[in-house]
Amino acid sequence: MSNEDFNKRLFKYLDDHQKDYIQRLSDAVAIPSVSAWPDHRPEVFRMVQWTKSFMESLGIAVELADVGEQKLADGTKLKLPDVILGTYGNDKLKKTVVIYGHLDVQPAQVSDGWDTEPFVLTEKSGKLYGRGSTDDKGPVISWLNVIEAYQKLNEPFPVNVKFVLESMEEYGSEGLEDLLKSLKNTFLSGVDYVVISDSYWLGKEKPCLQYGLRGICYFFIDVESSTKDLHSGCFGGTIHEAMTDLIAVMSTLVDDQGRILIDGIYDEVAQLLPEEAEIYKRITFDVKAYSAEAGVDKTIQQDKEQILMHRWRYPSLTLHGIQGAFDGVGCKTVIPRHVIGKFSIRIVPNMKIATVEKLVEKHVKNVMEKRNSPNKVSVKLEHGGDYWLADPNHPQYVAARRATVAVHGIEPDLTREGGSIPITLTFQEQTGKNVLLLPIGASDDGAHSQNEKFDVSNYMNGMKVMGVYFQEVARV
Amino acid sequence: MSNEDFNKRLFKYLDDHQKDYIQRLSDAVAIPSVSAWPDHRPEVFRMVQWTKSFMESLGIAVELADVGEQKLADGTKLKLPDVILGTYGNDKLKKTVVIYGHLDVQPAQVSDGWDTEPFVLTEKSGKLYGRGSTDDKGPVISWLNVIEAYQKLNEPFPVNVKFVLESMEEYGSEGLEDLLKSLKNTFLSGVDYVVISDSYWLGKEKPCLQYGLRGICYFFIDVESSTKDLHSGCFGGTIHEAMTDLIAVMSTLVDDQGRILIDGIYDEVAQLLPEEAEIYKRITFDVKAYSAEAGVDKTIQQDKEQILMHRWRYPSLTLHGIQGAFDGVGCKTVIPRHVIGKFSIRIVPNMKIATVEKLVEKHVKNVMEKRNSPNKVSVKLEHGGDYWLADPNHPQYVAARRATVAVHGIEPDLTREGGSIPITLTFQEQTGKNVLLLPIGASDDGAHSQNEKFDVSNYMNGMKVMGVYFQEVARV
Ligand SMILES: [Zn+2]
Ligand SMILES: [Zn+2]
Ligand SMILES: [Zn+2]
Ligand SMILES: [Zn+2]
Repeated sequence: MSNEDFNKRLFKYLDDHQKDYIQRLSDAVAIPSVSAWPDHRPEVFRMVQWTKSFMESLGIAVELADVGEQKLADGTKLKLPDVILGTYGNDKLKKTVVIYGHLDVQPAQVSDGWDTEPFVLTEKSGKLYGRGSTDDKGPVISWLNVIEAYQKLNEPFPVNVKFVLESMEEYGSEGLEDLLKSLKNTFLSGVDYVVISDSYWLGKEKPCLQYGLRGICYFFIDVESSTKDLHSGCFGGTIHEAMTDLIAVMSTLVDDQGRILIDGIYDEVAQLLPEEAEIYKRITFDVKAYSAEAGVDKTIQQDKEQILMHRWRYPSLTLHGIQGAFDGVGCKTVIPRHVIGKFSIRIVPNMKIATVEKLVEKHVKNVMEKRNSPNKVSVKLEHGGDYWLADPNHPQYVAARRATVAVHGIEPDLTREGGSIPITLTFQEQTGKNVLLLPIGASDDGAHSQNEKFDVSNYMNGMKVMGVYFQEVARV
Repeated sequence: MSNEDFNKRLFKYLDDHQKDYIQRLSDAVAIPSVSAWPDHRPEVFRMVQWTKSFMESLGIAVELADVGEQKLADGTKLKLPDVILGTYGNDKLKKTVVIYGHLDVQPAQVSDGWDTEPFVLTEKSGKLYGRGSTDDKGPVISWLNVIEAYQKLNEPFPVNVKFVLESMEEYGSEGLEDLLKSLKNTFLSGVDYVVISDSYWLGKEKPCLQYGLRGICYFFIDVESSTKDLHSGCFGGTIHEAMTDLIAVMSTLVDDQGRILIDGIYDEVAQLLPEEAEIYKRITFDVKAYSAEAGVDKTIQQDKEQILMHRWRYPSLTLHGIQGAFDGVGCKTVIPRHVIGKFSIRIVPNMKIATVEKLVEKHVKNVMEKRNSPNKVSVKLEHGGDYWLADPNHPQYVAARRATVAVHGIEPDLTREGGSIPITLTFQEQTGKNVLLLPIGASDDGAHSQNEKFDVSNYMNGMKVMGVYFQEVARV
């Protein structure tokens, strides 16, 4: 168990400095470090420098890793922001924790529909509105605030920490995977745990720890019918139109209950274990709030367990759209010559990307063989990312559960996410160690939306959990 | 029969002035009267003035009809170009012919892929390259050149002529239909024939007259699933996605042989008459050239008659695209909340728009009733335009056939078009008289493409046909 005396002192210290922490977050939010806007790259660099200074003031040794250049669509090159590699403590007797976070933010402007200036942190009824407040400046600064609190309280830090803070996360994390691979036997060697706070609670009230993510296989179906777009008046009725084939193929992929119709696709999906249903039953999850959040009257499944299973442990297939067809407003009488249908399959344990690719190719081939069409139809796996699954009973998870109990008085829910956070898998692969997703923000923070916010209570409790986690993970 | 002596003199006069005619067309092409570009509106006005001056120099009485303002997308208003109403002759003993044409052109810039400056008429190997050369400045100027030739030859003009020359044709002919309706009992009363030269031969060598056009019913299928776009990772598998329903509905509309699958849609299509196949057999049409023009290896039908029938006398259905889905390059993991599928049916005699609308609504309803989906799906006839069919044995057609024989030495093919030229029907309705489509350009002129051209031989022979047509139509 953690040191309850110290915990009390820590919580009091943190509570006493709430104003300072808000100011600090405010300073960070004021730097519009939008990685997707090339003309804002200097602001991203400024954010890296701001963080480096803060870290160095805490005695963290900082190295800036150059990850090269980004090639823009117009051909020009732009320096990528350095990745911050921080080292705090080097005691062979202590465990070493890797903390990942990011300093860049999503684009934001008032005209998108913000009620406040996105780069001015604004407090309203206990909520801190501002771009990056919860994603991911708040959590990153929380980690650092906790280190500072230990120092002010003259408490020896329980673990060694290595920081990996990138600034291109919202634009594909360019350069990071290669960097991590290159650090495998140096910076990352000998670490014990990886922890990431860049996700959100399942709801607004109850904390959770995440131990699973779905992967994704994103496919392009390419159909080409002629060398030029044609006019449907002149040619309609005599041409094997690309859209007719594409729509026919796309219509065979998924049924009205979300069931994927590709032969064999469920064969590798992990069997439902007898105890598994129990896990889902225990999770606090409001079905009505979920429908409201999605903005639908009726979800496919009605009960909690089924909804959660279909988000987390079953695959799903989404038809995203078509490139090359008429997509504007109004009427256009074109027969598009070349169209690309786009769909993706969310994959789960124990589906293999290679199997999914093979089954989809076979399916499309079968559908087209039954059609009498001379058009060139091909399907391509444009992007594949594996699912990720950790053991929620791993010591690091136990440590985080204890920390949550110490702060919130309840066990966190053990949950998964339906989407993917590719860096999770990369860290697991390059360290070979357990990765913990430790969210401190709430489900309604609106990370990528207008009016992104971070609740003051989540900020404060998040730091407390982090503070206790360091002690717990040192002793498990 | 026409006066062969005069024909000889007319042809010689026209041939002797070829250079002048090319210069005149060059002057017109030099005015970039692009109706789709608001900032070029003054050039459209300039083209109207240029034509008015030319007509007045021939003694044609010109009135400029104000058709009001155009409302741009940004809310600003722009004056529509005046429609030229010209009156040439008012002899009660003569027939009166209405000639329609347009002075505006499609957009064009070198960067679109032109080999020459689009607004500089450039002669290369007997072809006159330039925007508007064939569509429709060449034909309009041809009519006027012929009137001039009659005058220079001191030949009494055989008919009265009324001109309707608009300058918004390439942007929806805004204002024209209302104007024609308002002129029904004044300018258009008592006319005998309408002739339009704003289409093209079926091939490159043989002249034709067109007596039919398909109509169009353009439908929007609207599917809404939620109040906001969702992330396929977070929500995929639990939501009735709008795209799944839309693609399912769109896939039931047409099969791989272009056959429309909507119940009852063929019921009103005119039965194939015993003599009809003969008509198609007589037409000169190169199947290989057609495939090459379309840029396809293989058309649905292989023989000439079947291809022509499927372009002209059978309906067809084209899936144009989807609005609201992901249509960009790359991958985006969105579940679109609201998508609009767009398709159109080309309609033929004796299909009624109201019947087509009813059948499509019923079809979509039937498909959705079999699906278990709470999504709102509606279908709407966004635009309906009737087919048009004239009697190719009508005296005006006989006159044009005789004129063609006099110039080309062969009977023109009697053909239809697969597309629609809505103004044709409007003229027929407002005058109650026969409308003749008299193309003088060739099938490869590229009216709306880069490198639009008008062959010198088509220009010269076109004027000759027009010159004889005036005599023939006066006496039939
Ligand atoms: Zn993030
Ligand atoms: Zn983010
Ligand atoms: Zn035209
Ligand atoms: Zn045109």
